[in-house]
Amino acid sequence: MSSDLKTQLELWRSQIEQTIEREMPPADRRPAVIHEAMRYAVLGGGKRLRPILAIAAADACGADPTPLLRPICALELIHTYSLVHDDLPALDDDDLRRGRKTTHVVFGEAMAILAGDALLTEAFCWLTEPVAGVDPAGQLLAARLVARAVDASGMIGGQVADLEAESLETRTQDRAVLMDELAFIHRNKTGRLLTASLELGGVLAGADDARLGHLRAYGEAIGLAFQIVDDLLDLEGSAETLGKTAGKDVAQGKLTWPSLLGIEAARTRVEELVKAAENSAVMIGRPEYLVPLARYIGARRS
Amino acid sequence: MSSDLKTQLELWRSQIEQTIEREMPPADRRPAVIHEAMRYAVLGGGKRLRPILAIAAADACGADPTPLLRPICALELIHTYSLVHDDLPALDDDDLRRGRKTTHVVFGEAMAILAGDALLTEAFCWLTEPVAGVDPAGQLLAARLVARAVDASGMIGGQVADLEAESLETRTQDRAVLMDELAFIHRNKTGRLLTASLELGGVLAGADDARLGHLRAYGEAIGLAFQIVDDLLDLEGSAETLGKTAGKDVAQGKLTWPSLLGIEAARTRVEELVKAAENSAVMIGRPEYLVPLARYIGARRS
Repeated sequence: MSSDLKTQLELWRSQIEQTIEREMPPADRRPAVIHEAMRYAVLGGGKRLRPILAIAAADACGADPTPLLRPICALELIHTYSLVHDDLPALDDDDLRRGRKTTHVVFGEAMAILAGDALLTEAFCWLTEPVAGVDPAGQLLAARLVARAVDASGMIGGQVADLEAESLETRTQDRAVLMDELAFIHRNKTGRLLTASLELGGVLAGADDARLGHLRAYGEAIGLAFQIVDDLLDLEGSAETLGKTAGKDVAQGKLTWPSLLGIEAARTRVEELVKAAENSAVMIGRPEYLVPLARYIGARRS
Repeated sequence: MSSDLKTQLELWRSQIEQTIEREMPPADRRPAVIHEAMRYAVLGGGKRLRPILAIAAADACGADPTPLLRPICALELIHTYSLVHDDLPALDDDDLRRGRKTTHVVFGEAMAILAGDALLTEAFCWLTEPVAGVDPAGQLLAARLVARAVDASGMIGGQVADLEAESLETRTQDRAVLMDELAFIHRNKTGRLLTASLELGGVLAGADDARLGHLRAYGEAIGLAFQIVDDLLDLEGSAETLGKTAGKDVAQGKLTWPSLLGIEAARTRVEELVKAAENSAVMIGRPEYLVPLARYIGARRS
């Protein structure tokens, strides 16, 4: 990563942290425990990749992202809610996330369920709070676009398919069935919200349909690349570098790209996807952040 | 209930059922199990009180409610999601709801958590889908108003306080503390969404601030009346008439109006609140449905 990009990302990340800190309800609001749990979950670090992508998209479409930060940071609340619920004992049963104890380990299961609900709800508040300079019809579209990306056939559907795919490889050897299932999981579980992040930035910036199409194509490519890298890291990484439990995919018999196609084929696919994303970024016309961001996603180590 | 009101309520209820049936994603959409679980939860009966109140509010403000049905029915999705999550083993641990097995009993805990998430998300899709004849700024306001009503200091906050209040009476005898806690629970757990239902109908109908104020006052009065009646029914009712487990409040040591003030005082309070709601309905100018609805809420037996 060039030092220019690094500086820019640090600036954006600090704007994101400040926005979340400022806009989140205070920890002592009644009832305090739920507000503490929400803050614990969302202010515990994280790459903030989704808001960063939305900011880069808005910037690439010629808008100043600063006034758009509240709806953009709603993406991080939604991502966090999905992690809090996915980590629950009834789902992935994970007790480590972003290098810290998961929300249900600290606050109990009931409060983790409700804190996840509250983060999702807060996100929709942020998406529908009027933004100066954005026309209400565009903002309504932006909110709907994000909601659709995380519905039962979007992000939640991807999580459902992921849960169902556990041990699918022991039930069928049909490669086409397995590949189709894997593609569905990848496209939805991570891909839809990452793609919606790009689109949200574009819509809030008032982008035309052509640019929105390129942003979508970029999002779909980096979304899939991100997920394959995730699978590779789970295979190769350690809890220390990941900040979450490593090696769980194999232990749980999960369907992953490397398990199905091999590590080398998975790495090649990531390279192709990063290249495709770069091409889309060039088509948008201002590739200075989107191109290196695509490379960073393909090469990340945590 | 007069036969005219009964006919009108039946008509509205059938419009609501048809809208939910039509707008919900089909049960065979991939992944099927989550869409089945969502439909099981929301299409399993219920009074549909929140959409009925929103329709009555829109009607009282002079609007034809028919084109407004999709965002109005989002209220029922939100109410249902809250029931699905509240019934989970980690929360109220209930296995009977609306006379049927709860969602987690039929589909398992993981799927019930995700189906609740998906119902909430679908609700925001319906709230942000453009409605002909409603200006986008008004619709954005309507969506935000509903989201705020069910956030961590609204409906979710009420549920948190309710969970925390279990056995509160064994920890303190301070009547003022107990009354304050009870008022917080009632105002938020049921009151906020019921009030937002009235406001949603009004905002979608283009009501002015004066009428919105009366709708809010009406909603707050019937919201509290509804909750006190709920407490009374839990004490007096049977699972057969309630469609859910009766007597749980006492068994769980929950803070309720009758347990704190006595059954007679609770009944008197319901009468006063119904009267206050009637007065607000008259101020709105078209009280023909809102007045009998307030009486129905005060007198309901299930």
